[in-house]
Amino acid sequence: MRVGIIGVGCSKFGVRDDVTLQELAFEAVKEAIEDAGISKEDIEMSVVGTAGTRSYELMPAVPINEYCGFTGKGPIRVEAACATGSAAVYTAYSTIKSGIADVVIAIGVEKMNEVDTPTSLAVGGRSGSYLWEFHQYGTTFPGYYAMHASAHMARYGTTEKQLAMVAVKNHRNAAKNPKAQFQKEITLEKALSSRYVAYPLRLFDCSAITDGSAAAILASEEKIKELGLKDQAVWIEGIGYSSDTANLSKRIDYVGLKATVEASRMAYKMAKIDDPVKQLDVAALHDCFTIAEIMAYEDLGFCKKGEGGKFIENGDSDFGGKIPVNTFGGLKAKGHPLGATGVGMVYEIVKQLRGEAGELQVDLKNYKGLTHNIGGTGHFGWVFILGV
Amino acid sequence: MRVGIIGVGCSKFGVRDDVTLQELAFEAVKEAIEDAGISKEDIEMSVVGTAGTRSYELMPAVPINEYCGFTGKGPIRVEAACATGSAAVYTAYSTIKSGIADVVIAIGVEKMNEVDTPTSLAVGGRSGSYLWEFHQYGTTFPGYYAMHASAHMARYGTTEKQLAMVAVKNHRNAAKNPKAQFQKEITLEKALSSRYVAYPLRLFDCSAITDGSAAAILASEEKIKELGLKDQAVWIEGIGYSSDTANLSKRIDYVGLKATVEASRMAYKMAKIDDPVKQLDVAALHDCFTIAEIMAYEDLGFCKKGEGGKFIENGDSDFGGKIPVNTFGGLKAKGHPLGATGVGMVYEIVKQLRGEAGELQVDLKNYKGLTHNIGGTGHFGWVFILGV
Repeated sequence: MRVGIIGVGCSKFGVRDDVTLQELAFEAVKEAIEDAGISKEDIEMSVVGTAGTRSYELMPAVPINEYCGFTGKGPIRVEAACATGSAAVYTAYSTIKSGIADVVIAIGVEKMNEVDTPTSLAVGGRSGSYLWEFHQYGTTFPGYYAMHASAHMARYGTTEKQLAMVAVKNHRNAAKNPKAQFQKEITLEKALSSRYVAYPLRLFDCSAITDGSAAAILASEEKIKELGLKDQAVWIEGIGYSSDTANLSKRIDYVGLKATVEASRMAYKMAKIDDPVKQLDVAALHDCFTIAEIMAYEDLGFCKKGEGGKFIENGDSDFGGKIPVNTFGGLKAKGHPLGATGVGMVYEIVKQLRGEAGELQVDLKNYKGLTHNIGGTGHFGWVFILGV
Repeated sequence: MRVGIIGVGCSKFGVRDDVTLQELAFEAVKEAIEDAGISKEDIEMSVVGTAGTRSYELMPAVPINEYCGFTGKGPIRVEAACATGSAAVYTAYSTIKSGIADVVIAIGVEKMNEVDTPTSLAVGGRSGSYLWEFHQYGTTFPGYYAMHASAHMARYGTTEKQLAMVAVKNHRNAAKNPKAQFQKEITLEKALSSRYVAYPLRLFDCSAITDGSAAAILASEEKIKELGLKDQAVWIEGIGYSSDTANLSKRIDYVGLKATVEASRMAYKMAKIDDPVKQLDVAALHDCFTIAEIMAYEDLGFCKKGEGGKFIENGDSDFGGKIPVNTFGGLKAKGHPLGATGVGMVYEIVKQLRGEAGELQVDLKNYKGLTHNIGGTGHFGWVFILGV
């Protein structure tokens, strides 16, 4: 029995002081329900993905579900740091596959600009192991990814210019995406002259602090036939997951993420993907920092290890290239609201595979796409293959 | 394809200043692996349930999995407030049923005595809606359940003595449970003369602040046969879930929990339970406060609405009664470490159904038991039916 996505929605990403967490979630939920053309009564379970470290609510899933009309149907919240959204989509998938429910909505939502408590200051910006890394050294996200960038530059000769080219591409795409936080192109010169946040990462190598929501409605094949929605369904053909050590001093190296390699291996096997570049039409990669997109090209097998810098430089990840990556602007320019990011990637790939991406539409040959969502610095890894 | 539980483990519950969160989790994981008689390499996925509002770790699932040897296998953390443990067991179940993995461990763990930050002070003791209840009125858990108790007493004549009898029974059982936080009997006089925490709830009507962990290893029927573990498997025969409004002023009444009614209805249907008292041998109910156990008797259909007080008074929930409830001491006396509670209930019912509960063993006729786990004050509700 296959599981398909029958409706998707996404809020405008950005600084969303105009709405509460619940209202923000509803923007995506409403759009997903209208997109599916079903009634909210058809939905039997709601899974809420929210990292939640910046929320006032002890139990954010409850008020979110209540506001969206899913009281009685929302028994679970999931979290996998920045990969929280993918964990929510997975839980919706497995609920349907297990026969517990036929129609499930995965809601990803995050307000990151709301609370400024000691908690958000202390934990919001960090990754890694509390005991061994944060407490002792205070390392935060830009610092960790700067270590990755430095290692990649040292071993493979990756350049600051190549890093900046990822930002330029993703901002160029985001400029055409009405949902994006930064609908503005940047030049290579601007990126390369922006200040360092953590060497070698400059301001434009970093994703920002974003509020946003996304939703995906999944259903069993049987239910999809019953609802007459077979023509609009996008199927989940592959799922891969992995996780890695919280103690970065235990990592073998810093030039890639093992969680990406392992998660993609699992997803490729399930979806029978031998050559991702040839078999996939489009991909949404986890570019929380520009180096992360370059490492992902390699770890996902889009190119050989060490050739990620050339991949962006050659335009291989751009429209018309080998495989267009982050056509919607990526985390870098569309934004990265933790819980919403993974569901938002599914939203973007579904739109592409249905040919509804407008100005940002890629050529469809195989009608297959990929999402790649990382929590922390590879602490969590999720890869989905979607297809029609 | 059925899903069975092949191994369970549980730490000593109590104030566990002697261990870190990771070490605490490992106590249950080690016992579960030894109980199953498998190798940790047989386990393909780990699901961590931890509410986590009192933890230093931003991503507690990662260091927990790492310490327990599940690096690479732990892509998800789940949360459903005090029902977090049940959400973890459910996610393990659905992962297996969906064919993603054959052997999954559900780990529930909570350290509640560790952190004393503004976060824990502000949110740790409360439930309900931040906007409408906490921010305005500051209501905390004892206050909410006191409202339930008052309503139940007013409508049905339930007495403080009947409330206290729940505490006396559960402490009597906990006295024989080496894992319990309070291995000490109390008298009815002692309970009834303890100070009020929130009228009509006295000190001995409330569960305490507990650290603890529990683990359950689930596997597919096929894998169980392959491993030669069919004789020790306890099957998950029914699953029910529900959720309710975060705004208690919207509840129809305070004499029961709709989430319990709805979750049990779903689980009973799946497990073909028409008469729970006749068909079940034992039950673990969510007695965070004594009134909660009395309401659960009624909401689960063990007796009619309003007769829960008489049910405890008549000894119907005691050994030799209609259906022994909380034979292990319940949340009240074994303890209530949020993330561990639901998995701990599964641990206790599995031990009973395998005839391994020692001094606390019930008579087995149907070889079926129930777990009932509530998040908040019925914000989340989970019911499982286990059987052999």
